[in-house]
Amino acid sequence: METARLVWSRLPHSEEGELDGVELLSNTSNRNGVDSLDYEVIENYAYREEQAQRGKLYVGYNVGVKWFFALLIGIGTGLAAVFINISVENFAGWKFSLTFNIIQKSYVAGFLIYILINLALVFSSVYIITQFAPAAAGSGIPEIKGYLNGIDIPGILLFRTLIGKIFGSIGSVGGGLALGKEGPLVHIGACIASLLGQGGSTKYHLSSRWLQGFKSERDRRDLVTCGCAAGVAAAFRAPVGGVLFALEEVTSWWRSQLMWRVFFTSAIVAVVVRAAMGWCKSGNCGHFGSGGFIIWDISDGQEDYSFEELLPMAVIGIIGGLLGALFNQLTIYITRWRRNYLHKKGNRVKIYEACLISVITSVISFGLPLLRKCSPCPDSDPDSEIECPRAPGMYGNYVNFYCSKDKEYNDLATIFFNTQDDAIRNLFSAKTIHEFSAQSLLTFLVMFYTLAVVTFGTAVPAGQFVPGIMIGSTYGRLVGIFTVNHYKKLNIEEGTYALLGAASFLGGSMRMTVSLCVIMVEITNNLKLLPLIMLVLLISKVCILLVYSIWIDVLQNVLTLFPSQAVGDAFNEGLYEEQARLRGIPLLESRPKYEMRKMTAREACGNQKVLSLPRVVKVADVVSILRSNKHNGFPVIDHTRNGETLVIGLMLRRYNSPTGTSSIQDRFPA
Amino acid sequence: METARLVWSRLPHSEEGELDGVELLSNTSNRNGVDSLDYEVIENYAYREEQAQRGKLYVGYNVGVKWFFALLIGIGTGLAAVFINISVENFAGWKFSLTFNIIQKSYVAGFLIYILINLALVFSSVYIITQFAPAAAGSGIPEIKGYLNGIDIPGILLFRTLIGKIFGSIGSVGGGLALGKEGPLVHIGACIASLLGQGGSTKYHLSSRWLQGFKSERDRRDLVTCGCAAGVAAAFRAPVGGVLFALEEVTSWWRSQLMWRVFFTSAIVAVVVRAAMGWCKSGNCGHFGSGGFIIWDISDGQEDYSFEELLPMAVIGIIGGLLGALFNQLTIYITRWRRNYLHKKGNRVKIYEACLISVITSVISFGLPLLRKCSPCPDSDPDSEIECPRAPGMYGNYVNFYCSKDKEYNDLATIFFNTQDDAIRNLFSAKTIHEFSAQSLLTFLVMFYTLAVVTFGTAVPAGQFVPGIMIGSTYGRLVGIFTVNHYKKLNIEEGTYALLGAASFLGGSMRMTVSLCVIMVEITNNLKLLPLIMLVLLISKVCILLVYSIWIDVLQNVLTLFPSQAVGDAFNEGLYEEQARLRGIPLLESRPKYEMRKMTAREACGNQKVLSLPRVVKVADVVSILRSNKHNGFPVIDHTRNGETLVIGLMLRRYNSPTGTSSIQDRFPA
Repeated sequence: METARLVWSRLPHSEEGELDGVELLSNTSNRNGVDSLDYEVIENYAYREEQAQRGKLYVGYNVGVKWFFALLIGIGTGLAAVFINISVENFAGWKFSLTFNIIQKSYVAGFLIYILINLALVFSSVYIITQFAPAAAGSGIPEIKGYLNGIDIPGILLFRTLIGKIFGSIGSVGGGLALGKEGPLVHIGACIASLLGQGGSTKYHLSSRWLQGFKSERDRRDLVTCGCAAGVAAAFRAPVGGVLFALEEVTSWWRSQLMWRVFFTSAIVAVVVRAAMGWCKSGNCGHFGSGGFIIWDISDGQEDYSFEELLPMAVIGIIGGLLGALFNQLTIYITRWRRNYLHKKGNRVKIYEACLISVITSVISFGLPLLRKCSPCPDSDPDSEIECPRAPGMYGNYVNFYCSKDKEYNDLATIFFNTQDDAIRNLFSAKTIHEFSAQSLLTFLVMFYTLAVVTFGTAVPAGQFVPGIMIGSTYGRLVGIFTVNHYKKLNIEEGTYALLGAASFLGGSMRMTVSLCVIMVEITNNLKLLPLIMLVLLISKVCILLVYSIWIDVLQNVLTLFPSQAVGDAFNEGLYEEQARLRGIPLLESRPKYEMRKMTAREACGNQKVLSLPRVVKVADVVSILRSNKHNGFPVIDHTRNGETLVIGLMLRRYNSPTGTSSIQDRFPA
Repeated sequence: METARLVWSRLPHSEEGELDGVELLSNTSNRNGVDSLDYEVIENYAYREEQAQRGKLYVGYNVGVKWFFALLIGIGTGLAAVFINISVENFAGWKFSLTFNIIQKSYVAGFLIYILINLALVFSSVYIITQFAPAAAGSGIPEIKGYLNGIDIPGILLFRTLIGKIFGSIGSVGGGLALGKEGPLVHIGACIASLLGQGGSTKYHLSSRWLQGFKSERDRRDLVTCGCAAGVAAAFRAPVGGVLFALEEVTSWWRSQLMWRVFFTSAIVAVVVRAAMGWCKSGNCGHFGSGGFIIWDISDGQEDYSFEELLPMAVIGIIGGLLGALFNQLTIYITRWRRNYLHKKGNRVKIYEACLISVITSVISFGLPLLRKCSPCPDSDPDSEIECPRAPGMYGNYVNFYCSKDKEYNDLATIFFNTQDDAIRNLFSAKTIHEFSAQSLLTFLVMFYTLAVVTFGTAVPAGQFVPGIMIGSTYGRLVGIFTVNHYKKLNIEEGTYALLGAASFLGGSMRMTVSLCVIMVEITNNLKLLPLIMLVLLISKVCILLVYSIWIDVLQNVLTLFPSQAVGDAFNEGLYEEQARLRGIPLLESRPKYEMRKMTAREACGNQKVLSLPRVVKVADVVSILRSNKHNGFPVIDHTRNGETLVIGLMLRRYNSPTGTSSIQDRFPA
């Protein structure tokens, strides 16, 4: 593993971009340039000497600071999540209640107001991103994954990125686009952690000098791992899910000592969020009430399942695998197209694009329900607390939207003309069998899937978790309708199938396993469905593998007309890995690919020549070698008595001095 | 890491013990001898050549076999768990109902029958272990941890160990000793996995030849990891907990591809166990009913907590840290004493010892409740389904045991004169405030703690999980009583405090984090308590760290009279690590200790001389070198032009041939 890591330091890379940190230079010339971090602590004589000098007190101080930082990261991320959630809920709540008030008089005026409010929110978001914090666009998880894999992407952990991400998310999520705030929260957690790790932002004179211990890349990486876990814990109120997400999905190098600290951070986030929600319960937070943090409690849902139900559940798994892989593929195409054509034309085009998508989204989410015929309310059950139609401006199922009669509701509006959180809550809801017609669900699925694909990659902060849950729960509920109709049993809840659908789509798209399972269980607060969620995830995975093998084996052998690149591309990895690859972030896999087993290092280097140093070398020679190229590492070569060449070590361009990170690079920049 | 691993292969080790496998010899001379496994696949030319020859079909076949094996492991472990649970519940249920019937007439006769049944069960267990499967004694987790760390302990994964573990567990748990069946189930899962991996047991002619692909140590280790997870999943019906346990506690080398397979195995276990329990519901399994698999559903317990409650919860964390660390320490002393004095006297002594402990346990668990005065039943609540006193022979709270009046119950008998599963259910139970008096709980705590310490290390299969939960929930409930009395609020449930106590004790003793959290949540089916469980675990951890620092810093500096070994020993690691160390299993930590940073390899080798080979060597020399020592690895040495010595590789004694594992050792055994 270590040797494999070192390869990255040796690979020639493009120039460094703008960076806020202390150690890195700012000779921006290529915005996509990445910098490889020194992944492992280099245990040379100087390092060991330094370690030996440090007393016991220093070790204790160092450990104390680390835990204190974990505490701060937890509090910071928790507060940021609370702030975003309160803002989004208030903007959205205000928007919907205003629109509902106006459409009592005129649907046209309401339509216009709705479009304008959404447009304003989305414009604010895209303006912040393009003008102020370009690195805050997108989900941020691929970049963080890259960072924790040892690749530093310029700008992703700056203070301005943090600010842009927070306010951009509020605009983009509040503006009703088909995206979520969960990925951005992970990025926000990582930013907070990184800024703490470098003692504040040097650029904005918030730095502090008392944090010399955190100059090591490893310590900063540990902090960022804590930040990631805190982000997930805050986004889903899923502390264990956060730890597992950091463990499974983000880091490629996990140390068991880190587990405790990550765990601590997540617990702090849970406490902060809980305290804030308790404070909000007394009505201090406006529209922020039962909504907000995505907890879709389905603990009163289906308790048990029969073996016949495994068939429709397997169908959900297969659909999830296929739709998820297709989603990844479509986003690859659209991201590539955007990168190569659209976004080359500058920031103005990015703003136009986001505004256009906002208008289209508003038109579809308002217009389609208008075309839909209303359904009569079900016979009211005196035990049930569900109202039909619900009171205007309130959350809940059974929206009266453009219905002619009093006791009618619009099922498409119930999911479309709503915040995504509430829509998912409605889709997951138990005891509402036959609330949604198959036709409405199918319409919604097609439209929302398309919107999610198109929205992906615009210049706003965007998470894919909540849209994924939306898509998945829609076809899950669709399968649930058929199951209810076919099996005619009373204990089947469509909401349960919606949950399984959500799990299958996320599994098919993001390819997570244990962490996804735990997150789904934590957000739905129902442990009994755990084996079913596991099953659906496995089927979705197997389905992907089967499609992959058939595709590769059959198509590659039969249709040799295709260029091999296209065939290879046709199957994709997880969403984050694919996006990282598209952004030019090299992610090292934990195990080499099968093809690599026969490759030699010479083949991997391609045309690039490795520059080596002899054991004894003149300073002038070193300087000229350093100046003549951009390599980061230089193997040191010696020879055996028989004249064979031996590698006896690796010199890095940057040098980790005992008192922090000074750098040969400072004097001899690449 | 890799280099650190290799050190083990190079360290001289004692002779190999008796082993069932194909590759290992059976020149038994030292039963405690361990064998180091080839941890990493050695990617030499022969290996790569072999890989290159293998076709695509082979790869597919190999992957298919692995998944098929994961399926078989899941089914096998699930069935073993079901069998053990049904047997234990039936033996225990029959024992208790018989005793209850007899004590209606005579307490003395009931007492004798109770002692005799327990004695018979424990005797069967200890007889099986001492005569038939000595490696099946104890929990087995330390040994499996060692195996997955690269150390093979003779006999731990044999077919006879599997059989001994299954039937031994039934006897020891059914016989009412203060131990659990969870650790043994992990061992059982690992045994099933290992036997599958070597294609059945060669000794019992169950082997099959079609499994050549699994000769690599890594593949077998992967299977054993699956088996571990399956064991935990089966023991606690906690599939996610199982995956995390394997990840956090057992393996030291985790590959992300393995995650899916482990996950799959756990899901299969969950399905098998669920199916079996469904079958048992119709009354096919005798006494096995609501008891058995440890799910202590407290979903109707406390929903919320106020900030004032954090103080008693912190107290629970502190008690957990202290009592847990003390438990580890006491078991170290007692295990050392047993090893050095008692168990040297042969199997007969081991049998006497176990039988004596059984009699003592029976006397205490029957006799102490006799001495306790009965309490009057609480005013019956018409809504509550809890009966007082409960019907004889049924499970539940409020046992009428040696009570003079009709409407009375014996609180000590409710927890003591019961299976541990039911006792824990009673301690966790909600809506039973003031069922237990502080005096009874304290008596029980002291007695059971002592019994658990004394029972630990006898020659029977023994898990520490359920006893740990018993101990923890007792003092947790004790703190709960004081909290209820002090805060005088209605929404505080003593059962919740019992749960937190259980978590804190297991945290203090086993030092698990995320996996323990998930297991506790899965067995209690209550997600809302997750942040509290995390908090209690953290406090227990911090408490241990504080005690540790004070102990080390103060005592080591002040009382320099103590030999340093004793001071260092006084603080302990996790239970499994300590036990592994006591059994002479070297566990590599993921990071070297602080003292090791300044050590050189020469110091680590001690007096042992490293034997090296030159680059070109005569066969006769190699043979004589191999014969002259027991080393497993030989560095190959070359020299630079300046005469400096260079290590250019490592030769192993054993050679991994393309067609399986042949061995230089076969011809030149150490």
